[in-house]
Amino acid sequence: MSNHVNASAPPLVLLSSAEQLLRLNKVREHMHMAGITHALVTGNANKFYLTGRVFTGYILLTPSETFYYVRRPVELSGTGVVYMRKPEELALTMPRLALELDELPYAVTTRLCKAFSTVEPLNLSPLLMAARAVKTEKEIELLKESGRRQDEVYRRIPALYRPGMTDLEFQIEIERASRLAGCLGQFRIAGDSMELFMGNVLAGDNADSPSPYDFAMGGAGMHPSIPVGADGTRIEPGMTVMVDVNGNYTGYMTDMTRDYRVGTVSEMALKAHRCSIEIHRRLAQAGVPGTPASTLWDLAVDTVGNYGLEDYFMGHRQHAGFVGHGVGIEINELPVIAPRSRHILEENNVLALEPKFVIPGTGAVGIENTYVVKPDGMHCITNCPDDLVDLLN
Amino acid sequence: MSNHVNASAPPLVLLSSAEQLLRLNKVREHMHMAGITHALVTGNANKFYLTGRVFTGYILLTPSETFYYVRRPVELSGTGVVYMRKPEELALTMPRLALELDELPYAVTTRLCKAFSTVEPLNLSPLLMAARAVKTEKEIELLKESGRRQDEVYRRIPALYRPGMTDLEFQIEIERASRLAGCLGQFRIAGDSMELFMGNVLAGDNADSPSPYDFAMGGAGMHPSIPVGADGTRIEPGMTVMVDVNGNYTGYMTDMTRDYRVGTVSEMALKAHRCSIEIHRRLAQAGVPGTPASTLWDLAVDTVGNYGLEDYFMGHRQHAGFVGHGVGIEINELPVIAPRSRHILEENNVLALEPKFVIPGTGAVGIENTYVVKPDGMHCITNCPDDLVDLLN
Repeated sequence: MSNHVNASAPPLVLLSSAEQLLRLNKVREHMHMAGITHALVTGNANKFYLTGRVFTGYILLTPSETFYYVRRPVELSGTGVVYMRKPEELALTMPRLALELDELPYAVTTRLCKAFSTVEPLNLSPLLMAARAVKTEKEIELLKESGRRQDEVYRRIPALYRPGMTDLEFQIEIERASRLAGCLGQFRIAGDSMELFMGNVLAGDNADSPSPYDFAMGGAGMHPSIPVGADGTRIEPGMTVMVDVNGNYTGYMTDMTRDYRVGTVSEMALKAHRCSIEIHRRLAQAGVPGTPASTLWDLAVDTVGNYGLEDYFMGHRQHAGFVGHGVGIEINELPVIAPRSRHILEENNVLALEPKFVIPGTGAVGIENTYVVKPDGMHCITNCPDDLVDLLN
Repeated sequence: MSNHVNASAPPLVLLSSAEQLLRLNKVREHMHMAGITHALVTGNANKFYLTGRVFTGYILLTPSETFYYVRRPVELSGTGVVYMRKPEELALTMPRLALELDELPYAVTTRLCKAFSTVEPLNLSPLLMAARAVKTEKEIELLKESGRRQDEVYRRIPALYRPGMTDLEFQIEIERASRLAGCLGQFRIAGDSMELFMGNVLAGDNADSPSPYDFAMGGAGMHPSIPVGADGTRIEPGMTVMVDVNGNYTGYMTDMTRDYRVGTVSEMALKAHRCSIEIHRRLAQAGVPGTPASTLWDLAVDTVGNYGLEDYFMGHRQHAGFVGHGVGIEINELPVIAPRSRHILEENNVLALEPKFVIPGTGAVGIENTYVVKPDGMHCITNCPDDLVDLLN
């Protein structure tokens, strides 16, 4: 019983061995292709990807071994688990170490390089993004589970509306319903420039307020410290209301948007809603493995042109430059569906399409669904009905 | 009317000129002391500090001028506002540029250095942290406003409890009440290693679950992707419940924790609650300008010793290494109240004290308040009563 603490301690790795091996092999393949032998993983999203949990510390990948250098929490166990207080005490020498240079702060990077005698760090971020862009069957299962639960919540949204509500009051009831249904709340976004609480509810002309963030839609927000989304607009007849809230139920997020109307809305809004659905139909059909992401963008723009809605597509006063994006552990994964995107769709990419419009005088219109790329096209995993539901009915 | 667009565009700077000057002068003083002539501010928290809004782009500080290089949102105006698409097109040459190296990703830093011919970047992060640690009167006003509104919500917490609730269900009702009262939700944390949704509600022994994050208290959380806080524990008689939720009502956060009990709880928990209040009393009295932060830590530990509660202070299975921290735009500002802290209290520091305990078999106990450092001691700005309220009454 000399090893009592370790024997009773919970395992650090929460993935099954087979699942972890799939992911590690994929990452090592990308490392091999890039000529990288040693990689230190430090970001929460990537640690969760490789172990199934978030901890404070690092994962070191060598060509054949995996080490977990842990500072917190106490009491984790498993092969390769080493507790440490700081990187300097590990006494490792790795002249060509790869680090997540797209996210890791400069000061932390230089400290780690010094600790590990790394001459010039290589960039691990694009490799991990590429590996994570093609989901495993287990990840797809988790995404489908998020989609099912988000769907259940979205079906109850019309019942949460009360006449006289502001956009924010409506949003708060949707937040509560989501949380009670198991939504974890946390909105993981790669990079530190975009911030969002639990999603967006946009009513009327607030949809046309330019936001500093690179989201598909804007909104002035409640405060200039977090200038996006609901701004306290009272929901009135003739407006559309767009709901795009957090689908993180499993550590993996689905992304879904639905449109609502208050009584009769403009013809233009109805047309934009039909156009959005047609874009989904065309892109889901075209999105087979091997399709360039830019082709999907072109198809979307072509459809928008058929409807004569160019001025309102992906914004009006300010336009977003994409119509879709990968989703998974983070909301902005690969591939990006944009005009100059170089990504080619692969089987088991999971991505959200969000062809959206801002119709001045009415509001935002456009639905969003999350899809899995399969040989016969993209399979939708967010299946709530996509009608433009009248909140007054 | 040749300048029509600019004339009608909203101003980029939302602070009054006098207020902005106070802040800019403080930052330039720190730059001058560090021998820094040019600084490029890129982080959302620091941009909000210097302008009163978040935008995508940079602020360039020279010894006498301030420029705002903006990418998004469209249509902002003001002296020094320059729209740009990418830093390379600015054609600036600044060999000794200071950047926020503690937060800015390595890859972004090297790109900016290349764009601006910066040979070796200097670190702006500690200077901005130091400047922000001493609040202006306007900032203190905003913090007091957050404290007042958080206080109002906290007073209603006992009425939100229903017998049979889980910790999470209780938390969701507190989240909703906070949001309806104007809480912005966003929990700004410096650095990217800590994640938290909207605060923590800890019931019973879940308080003793070690978390990977450097928060004062742990909790297993609902999912290993965000392992902190409520874990679905049903709230039962004999348990304490600790509520520590988001106080961001103004872009500035106050930090407040209150304790609740379900009927009769252990003597040890009652004692820990009294000890926490005594620590607050002693530290608030001792915390005058010029006091080393480490002295406050020592005083706290001394008080804990008097009560014989050493084993439970700041955790039980896992301990946090601090008893207080600066608050403001972010939740982890300066000064830090810790044993080896080198900070000396200054007038108008704003900090949260959170002497907390984990009592095995009962739960977490300990209150948290936010204070402004003044010549006669620390003034509390989170004034909800601090009794150990019985949720069954």
